[in-house]
Amino acid sequence: MNFLQKLEHAWATQNSLLQVGLDPDPARFPAELQGRPDAILSFCRGIVDATAPFASSFKPQIAYFAAHRAEDQLEALCGHIRDKYPHLPIVLDAKRGDIGSTAENYAREAFERYQAHAVTVSPYMGLDSVEPYLAWRDRGVIVLCRTSNPGGSDLQFLPMADGQPLYLHVAGLVADKWNAHGQCGLVVGATYPNELAAVRKRVGDSLPLLVPGIGAQGGDINATVQAGANSARAGMMINSSRAIIYASGGEDWREAAAEAARGLRDAINAVR
Amino acid sequence: MNFLQKLEHAWATQNSLLQVGLDPDPARFPAELQGRPDAILSFCRGIVDATAPFASSFKPQIAYFAAHRAEDQLEALCGHIRDKYPHLPIVLDAKRGDIGSTAENYAREAFERYQAHAVTVSPYMGLDSVEPYLAWRDRGVIVLCRTSNPGGSDLQFLPMADGQPLYLHVAGLVADKWNAHGQCGLVVGATYPNELAAVRKRVGDSLPLLVPGIGAQGGDINATVQAGANSARAGMMINSSRAIIYASGGEDWREAAAEAARGLRDAINAVR
Repeated sequence: MNFLQKLEHAWATQNSLLQVGLDPDPARFPAELQGRPDAILSFCRGIVDATAPFASSFKPQIAYFAAHRAEDQLEALCGHIRDKYPHLPIVLDAKRGDIGSTAENYAREAFERYQAHAVTVSPYMGLDSVEPYLAWRDRGVIVLCRTSNPGGSDLQFLPMADGQPLYLHVAGLVADKWNAHGQCGLVVGATYPNELAAVRKRVGDSLPLLVPGIGAQGGDINATVQAGANSARAGMMINSSRAIIYASGGEDWREAAAEAARGLRDAINAVR
Repeated sequence: MNFLQKLEHAWATQNSLLQVGLDPDPARFPAELQGRPDAILSFCRGIVDATAPFASSFKPQIAYFAAHRAEDQLEALCGHIRDKYPHLPIVLDAKRGDIGSTAENYAREAFERYQAHAVTVSPYMGLDSVEPYLAWRDRGVIVLCRTSNPGGSDLQFLPMADGQPLYLHVAGLVADKWNAHGQCGLVVGATYPNELAAVRKRVGDSLPLLVPGIGAQGGDINATVQAGANSARAGMMINSSRAIIYASGGEDWREAAAEAARGLRDAINAVR
C-alpha cells in the first residue's frame, strides 16, 4: 500500500480526518514526567496511545526533538506507532528543501531512519529538490503551499504576472507535474478558508491536503471542512497539536487528550 | 562580535572569500576511515584542519549527519572548529523554514546545540518564520534567494505582477525589511552570474552572499566574482565542497584538500 492508499484506508476505517500533531515541549509536560531522560518519548507515546482511536494519522514535528538531542526518542516513537498502530500513517513534519545528494540524505533521514510514510517539504528550490523524496515510490511528499501563519503572505500571496498568487501557482505545479505518481499532497492552512477552497478547486479531488491551524491557531472547523473536503467528503488531514496534547497539564493528561481528540473528530464529522 | 563582523574580519585577516562546505559522504571516504564509528567526525576534522589556513568560513550541511544518526559528530565537529579556529565562522546549512515555536526550536538546534554563527533558512513561510532566528542578535540568517540547481527556476524565476522574478522580490524583502539589525545574508548560486549581479545591485554593499555552485556545479570563478563582489571586492562566501573535500580519495586526502582550497582561494583572489 502506498501512502495515499494507506491514508484513504485510515480515513475510512477510522471514520476520522483528524491528524494529531506531536510537538512535544518539555516545559508543558505533566509533573510526573518532569526531569525524566525519556520524558519526550513517554509523553508522545502516552498521547499516541490515548488518541489513536480517534485519529487517522500522526504528525511528529522533528524540530521539537532535534532541539533536545532527542532524535533517538523520535525513532522510538515512530517505531511505537508503526508497531501498535500499523494502520495509521506517520507524516514527519520536517519542511526540508535542498538539492541532489543533500536531499537524498534528507529522504533517507525521513524514510529510512524514522521510517515515516510521508514528509513535508518546501517548494522553493523546485522539482529537483523534491525528486529524491519522490524516488521512494510508496511514500508521500506533502509540499508547503499556503501556510497558516501571518507571514505566509509575504511570499505566498504575491501576485504573479498571470494574476494568480504564488501559492496557487505552487498548487498547480504540484498537481500537474510533481504528482506524476500520485505521491503528493499540499499544506494549506485552515486560517484562510477561501484560499483552501481555491486550492481544492485547482487540484481536484485526488490530492490530500494537510490542514493546520484548527484550534490553537483559530481556524473554523465548519468553514475548513466545506472549503477543503473533496467530493468524497474526505481528502484532508486536519491537524491539531497543542489543543489536544496540552488539553490538561495535570494527572489526567492522557484522558484529556483523548477527549479533545474525540471531540475534534466528532466536530469535523458533524459538518462533513 | 556579531556574525557579519566576524565574517568581515575573517575575509580580511584570512585574505580569502572561500567557504569550505562539509558534506561528508562515507562512501567517498579514504580507506583508512572506512568502517570507523567516528569516520564522519574524523574525516571532517581532517578536512577542517587541512583547509583552515585558506578558508574564511565553514559550512557543515546537516543532512549528511542526520542521515547517519551522526548529530553527536556534528556537535563535536562544531566544537572543534570553535576551539581551534575561533576566528572562522560556522554557517550551519539546514535550510529550515517553519513558524513560531517550531522555528524557535530549530533556532535552538542551530545556535545552542551546534553553536553555529549563522544558519541557512527558506523564505517561503515569510518573516515570522525567520524572526525566531533573528531574535539571536549576534547570529546570522542566510535566506535562500536564487539557488544553483536547475529546478530553482520552477519558483524563483517566475515573473511577478510587477515584472520582477520572485528571487529579486525575496532579495528586496530581505534587504529592506528582514535585515533591520544587519543579520541577514542571501544564498545566490554561481551558475547564474547575471542574476547574482542583479541581486548585488538590488541589495547594495552590506549583505553577504553565500554563493554555491563553483567547481563541481560548473560556476565560473571570474564571472562569479565580478557579479557578486561588493565595492570592497568582498561580500561573498564562495562555497566549494566536493571539489575540495574529495580532491583525493587516497592516503593524501588531507594534502589534496589543502591544495584544492589553496588553489581556489588564489584563483578567487586573482580576479578580485
